[in-house]
Amino acid sequence: MLILGIDPGFAIVGFGLVEADRGRQRLVQCGAITTPAGEPLPARLRQIADDMDLLLAQFQPQAMAVEELFFNNNITTGIGVAQARGVLLLAAERRGVPIFEYTPSQVKQAVVGYGKAEKRQVMDMTRRLLNLSAVPKPDDAADAVAIALCHARSFTSRLQSPDAARPGSGRYEVRKQVR
Amino acid sequence: MLILGIDPGFAIVGFGLVEADRGRQRLVQCGAITTPAGEPLPARLRQIADDMDLLLAQFQPQAMAVEELFFNNNITTGIGVAQARGVLLLAAERRGVPIFEYTPSQVKQAVVGYGKAEKRQVMDMTRRLLNLSAVPKPDDAADAVAIALCHARSFTSRLQSPDAARPGSGRYEVRKQVR
Repeated sequence: MLILGIDPGFAIVGFGLVEADRGRQRLVQCGAITTPAGEPLPARLRQIADDMDLLLAQFQPQAMAVEELFFNNNITTGIGVAQARGVLLLAAERRGVPIFEYTPSQVKQAVVGYGKAEKRQVMDMTRRLLNLSAVPKPDDAADAVAIALCHARSFTSRLQSPDAARPGSGRYEVRKQVR
Repeated sequence: MLILGIDPGFAIVGFGLVEADRGRQRLVQCGAITTPAGEPLPARLRQIADDMDLLLAQFQPQAMAVEELFFNNNITTGIGVAQARGVLLLAAERRGVPIFEYTPSQVKQAVVGYGKAEKRQVMDMTRRLLNLSAVPKPDDAADAVAIALCHARSFTSRLQSPDAARPGSGRYEVRKQVR
């Protein structure tokens, strides 16, 4: 199964494509979509949407994994990120790609085995699990790879768990805050 | 000039179409796009995007006016609204409709003539300026009509002002918070 991990952003969207096969994971591709700061907002959203569309068309992932959005740092930056995230989710939805959402601590738990792991530990485990010589660059791409890896590892365990027969049990769930 | 006013939302998106011609404004249509609370987030975003597309195709407005987003009340609700707003802006951008953004006080100033007017005053002036027998329903539609009216009245004055010759002077400007 090919998983597209996404680290949503407005100036930069990280992406990571991870192939998951019988408990093993392999990095297929990673990188970032960037938009120029000087451009008007709608043009930047369109560029994100178009580039995301190209990614989905080229790689045809079977799932998209994306981090849940929190506005703990900068609320005004968060508005831009959330607008971009809407556009990213729409692109996947229009292509029928199932979307899965994880909290930062779920990513840490799945990748490091400890929900309060530090970012550095997540990066290091991501590199080791995928047998890479270095942590992917930029940081946004590395984060996206970790999210894809989280889905690969969570999904695999779920498939092996007793409730695996329930189809779509890992599908995106509407959270209270977005109703 | 036909102006589409939008009150962005996630459960409900208000819209109002106002025709502006030589200092006079006429209400063409208003209403709301709604999405069911039980649906997954991506499906709701898609419905908003598709309905917005239909609106744009049917009425072919020459401008879209949308309120600036603030997260003063509920940040978590705001994430959903911002995601929907991204999708709405993308739809207009993809059809080449110029997007204009106004703050709540700009809307009040343009409609009532006083930037700190109360909502009730804005609704009443909207009704009177458009020669309607009642304030449009639901509230989201009325808000969207007021935003369209704001653009009609701001744009008209701008066209009559000395810097009117500068094309696109009223175009959407990227704000600091969304860079």
